[in-house]
Amino acid sequence: MTGVEMGTRVRGQPHTLGLKPVLHLIGLMLLSTAGMMLFPMLADLYFANSDWQSFASAAVFSGAIGLLLLRRSRGALHAGLTLRQAFLLTPLSWLSVSLVSALPFFFSDYGAVSRSLPDAFFEAVSGITTTGATVISGLERAPPGMLLWRAILQWMGGIGIIATAIAILPALGIGGMQLFRTESSDRSEKVMPRVRQMAMAIGAVYLGLTGIAIVVYRLAGMSAFDALIHALTSIATGGFSTSDRSFGNWEANGIQWFATVFMLSGSVPFVLYVRFMAGDYRALLDRQLRTMLRLLAVAILLVGTWLAASGQYGLEAAFRHAAFNIVSVITTTGFASADYALWGNAIVGLFFGLMFVGGCTGSTSGGIKIFRFEVMAIMLKAHFSRLLHPHGIFPRSYGDRVLDDEVVGSVVAFFAVFFLCYGVLTVALMALGLDFLTSASGAVTALSNVGPGLGEIIGPAGNFGPLPDAAKWLLSLGMLLGRLELFTVLILFAPRFWRG
Amino acid sequence: MTGVEMGTRVRGQPHTLGLKPVLHLIGLMLLSTAGMMLFPMLADLYFANSDWQSFASAAVFSGAIGLLLLRRSRGALHAGLTLRQAFLLTPLSWLSVSLVSALPFFFSDYGAVSRSLPDAFFEAVSGITTTGATVISGLERAPPGMLLWRAILQWMGGIGIIATAIAILPALGIGGMQLFRTESSDRSEKVMPRVRQMAMAIGAVYLGLTGIAIVVYRLAGMSAFDALIHALTSIATGGFSTSDRSFGNWEANGIQWFATVFMLSGSVPFVLYVRFMAGDYRALLDRQLRTMLRLLAVAILLVGTWLAASGQYGLEAAFRHAAFNIVSVITTTGFASADYALWGNAIVGLFFGLMFVGGCTGSTSGGIKIFRFEVMAIMLKAHFSRLLHPHGIFPRSYGDRVLDDEVVGSVVAFFAVFFLCYGVLTVALMALGLDFLTSASGAVTALSNVGPGLGEIIGPAGNFGPLPDAAKWLLSLGMLLGRLELFTVLILFAPRFWRG
Repeated sequence: MTGVEMGTRVRGQPHTLGLKPVLHLIGLMLLSTAGMMLFPMLADLYFANSDWQSFASAAVFSGAIGLLLLRRSRGALHAGLTLRQAFLLTPLSWLSVSLVSALPFFFSDYGAVSRSLPDAFFEAVSGITTTGATVISGLERAPPGMLLWRAILQWMGGIGIIATAIAILPALGIGGMQLFRTESSDRSEKVMPRVRQMAMAIGAVYLGLTGIAIVVYRLAGMSAFDALIHALTSIATGGFSTSDRSFGNWEANGIQWFATVFMLSGSVPFVLYVRFMAGDYRALLDRQLRTMLRLLAVAILLVGTWLAASGQYGLEAAFRHAAFNIVSVITTTGFASADYALWGNAIVGLFFGLMFVGGCTGSTSGGIKIFRFEVMAIMLKAHFSRLLHPHGIFPRSYGDRVLDDEVVGSVVAFFAVFFLCYGVLTVALMALGLDFLTSASGAVTALSNVGPGLGEIIGPAGNFGPLPDAAKWLLSLGMLLGRLELFTVLILFAPRFWRG
Repeated sequence: MTGVEMGTRVRGQPHTLGLKPVLHLIGLMLLSTAGMMLFPMLADLYFANSDWQSFASAAVFSGAIGLLLLRRSRGALHAGLTLRQAFLLTPLSWLSVSLVSALPFFFSDYGAVSRSLPDAFFEAVSGITTTGATVISGLERAPPGMLLWRAILQWMGGIGIIATAIAILPALGIGGMQLFRTESSDRSEKVMPRVRQMAMAIGAVYLGLTGIAIVVYRLAGMSAFDALIHALTSIATGGFSTSDRSFGNWEANGIQWFATVFMLSGSVPFVLYVRFMAGDYRALLDRQLRTMLRLLAVAILLVGTWLAASGQYGLEAAFRHAAFNIVSVITTTGFASADYALWGNAIVGLFFGLMFVGGCTGSTSGGIKIFRFEVMAIMLKAHFSRLLHPHGIFPRSYGDRVLDDEVVGSVVAFFAVFFLCYGVLTVALMALGLDFLTSASGAVTALSNVGPGLGEIIGPAGNFGPLPDAAKWLLSLGMLLGRLELFTVLILFAPRFWRG
C-alpha cells in the first residue's frame, strides 16, 4: 500500500470522479494482500496444520479479484488522483483489504471466526487497523498460520496508516493534518527531498525496528515464532498476541520493559527517525513527541507510585506494570501485562480517559492524537487571554509553524466529530443490550484503535467474542472510522460529494 | 439580584480590581436572601413547626453580613463595574448566596442536611443553580418551611441566571454569548429600549408564568402548598418536589401534561416573551427555540412510540411519560413522572446523551444549550464543504447575525472546557469509589444542572444522600461551574487575571 500511495500526487481539481484510478490502486492492494497470505500458508504447511487451505483459497480469491481490477483499469494512473478520488480511495481500499483479509478466518475451522462473517470481519478489521481487539479465545491452541496472519495484518496496517497519514491526509486537509503538509517538501527538503525516497526510508526504519524487536524478544526468551509475532504487533502498536494472557505470559528477563520501548517506538512520527538518521539530530526534540513523553512520565509516576504505595506490587513490578500498560493504552497498542481493571476505580477511570488520547500523528498509533490536544490547548490559552484583554492580539504557533484559523478549525471539527461518533456508537451499543461500561469503553477502544475495553466482558482479561453480532459490525465500523481519521469515511455520506 | 446586575454597566477597562463595588453588590444580595428567608420562617410558624428557628437564625446571620458589606462599601457603585470586577462578581456572588442559603438546612433538625455542611451546601447549591438534585429522602415528612425554602432558592436562582445571561455574560464574551450581546440594544431597540425596562418586563413575565402555574396546579388537584412549590420549581426548571416520587405522585387531571408545558415555558429565552408581548409576534420564530422544539418532537416521538410498542404503557401514558421526562431532562428541570431507568438500555443511553444538551440560553435551563450545538453544526457543515472545495468561500450566519470567528472560537472553547471539566469530574468521582455509571452521569447532571443522574444510587428513583461527603463537595462545585458557564469561575484560576 505504501509505495503506491506515497508515489501518487493529489491534484487540486475535485471535478472528475473517474473510478478507474481508484480501482487500479485497490487492485494492486488486493494482489499484495493475496501475496502476504502465502506466509501464513507456508507456516501452516511447515507445522503440518491443515488450516493452510484457508489461506490458499483466500489467496486465490483475493488475487483473482485484484488481477481483474488491474486488467479493467490498465493505464488509469498516469495522471495521479483528483481530490475526490483520493477521498474515495482511502475508505474503499481499507474496506476492500479488510474484506479479503477476513476470508482466511472465515474459511478456517478454528475458534469464533470460523464460518462467522461478523467475527471474521471484526478480527480482520481489528488487525488491519492495528486495534488488537480479538474475538478469539484459546490463542495458545490456534493454528500458527492464523496467529501469523493476525500479526501480518497489523504490521501491514501499521505501515499503511503511516503512508496514509503522510501522503494522503495532509493533502485532504483533514483534522489539522495540514500542519504536516509541507513536512517532506519544506522543512526537511535539504535532508530528504523526494517523496518516494522518504517512503523507502520510512519503510526501511519500520523493517529495521521490527528486526531489532524480533532479536530482542528472542534473546529475552520467547520462542522464535512468538518473537516474530510480537515484534510485528509491537512496532505496529497493534496488540495481537499468541496468548490469552497477552504479555502477562512473559515476565522474565525484562521482556515487558523491552516491549514497552518497542510500543513507544511505534508511536513516534516515523519521519523523525528518517530525519534523525540523515543527521538532523534536533528532530527528536519534536514538540509532539516531547509532549507525549511528558504525559507518559506523569501518568506512569502517578500510577506506579499508587501501585507500590497500596502494596499491590513491589517497587519494580509496580512501575513495570504501570509503564507497560499506560504506554500500551496511549500508543493504542492494546497489550496487557496484568489486569489493570483490578487496580481500583480511580485507575480504571484514568485508563478510560487515556484511551481517547492516542500517540503522535505520522506513527502507527490511533486515537485523537497528541498534536490535536496541543492545538486545542494553544487555542484555549489564547481564548482565556482574550477574555481578559478583548482587544489584545495573541499570535498562535505550533513549534515553528503558524497555527492559522484553517488548521485550528480543522482540529476542532475533528474533536467534534470524534465525540459525536463516540456518543452515537455508545448509545447504539447500549441499544443492543450491552451495559454502560462495556458500551462506553467499547466505543472509545474501537474509535481509538486501542484494543481491550473495560468491564467484565471486553476488559483486558476478556475478549470481544461474547458480544452480539450487531455489536461486532458496529465496532468494526468504528475501528475503520477511527483509523481513517473519520472524515475520509464520513465525507462519502455528504450529498455534495457525489454532486461534484 | 436582577435589578442591580442588569442596571450596572460593564466598562471596557480591565485595569482596576477594586473589590468594593463587588462587595457592595454581594451585600445587597445577601440582604435580599435574608429577606427571602422570612417566607419559609412564616410558613413554619403558620404550620406550628419549630423549624422556623433555623430560618430566623440564618436570616439574622445573612442580614448582618449583608449590612456589614454594604456599610463598608458605601457609594462604591457610582461608576459601574470593570471587566475584571464583573468576572469576580459572578462566581463570588453565587458562592456567597449559596453559603448563606445552606444555613437554614444546616441549622434544621430534619433529614440528611441537619448539622452536615456538605449536605446542607449541596442542597443549597442544587437549589440556587436550579439543578434539583437532593440529598433529602422522606420529603413528604419534611418541615413545610424547608420545602418552601428549596423552592424559593430555585425560583431566585432561575431569575438570577436569566439576569446573568442577559446582562453579564454577553459583555464578558463567554461561550459565544456575544451573539446575544446586542439583543436588547440593537434589534429590539424600537420595542424595548432600556435595559432596566427589559429587566422589569422579564421579571413580570417570570412572576406571571409562576402565578399561572400556581392556579393551574391547584385547579388540577394539588394542595395549595404543593401547587405553590411546584409552580416555583417548574418555571425555574429547578425540579425540587415535595414528594420522593416527584411528579409520579400526581397523575390525575392531566397534571403531568401541564407540568410539561410549564417546564418548557421556563426553557424559552425570556426576552422572546417580552418582545412577543410588545407586538413583535415573529419573536416566537426564534431559531434556537425552533431547534429545541424540533429536537423535543423527535425524541418524544421515538421514545413514546417505543414505550407504547413495547407494551410498557398504554398510548396516552406512553407519550405522556415520554414527553414529561424528555422535556424534564432537556430543559434540565429534573422532575420525573416515572423511573425511566427501567425503560431499557437504549433509553438510558439516550437520556444520558440528552443530559448534555440543555435548553435555550437566556432561559432558566442549564446544559451546553441549543444555540451552541447549532453554531457547532454550522461550523461543521462549512468545514465539510471546505474539504471538497478548498478554495470556496462559505459565509456562516446564525439567524440574521453573522457568525464571526470570535463567536465560533468562543463556542468551541466552551465545548472543550465543558468536556474537560466533565472528564475530570467523572474520574474524580470514580476515584472516590463510585461506580462508572454513577460517576459519569453524576458529573453531567451536575454540570448541566439537570437533577437526577442514572444508576441505582442517584437515578430518578434515588437521591444523592448516600454519596460520600467528598463527592457532594465535588458535585456542588460542578453545579456552580456549569451554572456560571464555566469561564467565569475558571478564569479566576488564571494567573493573568490577578496580574491585571
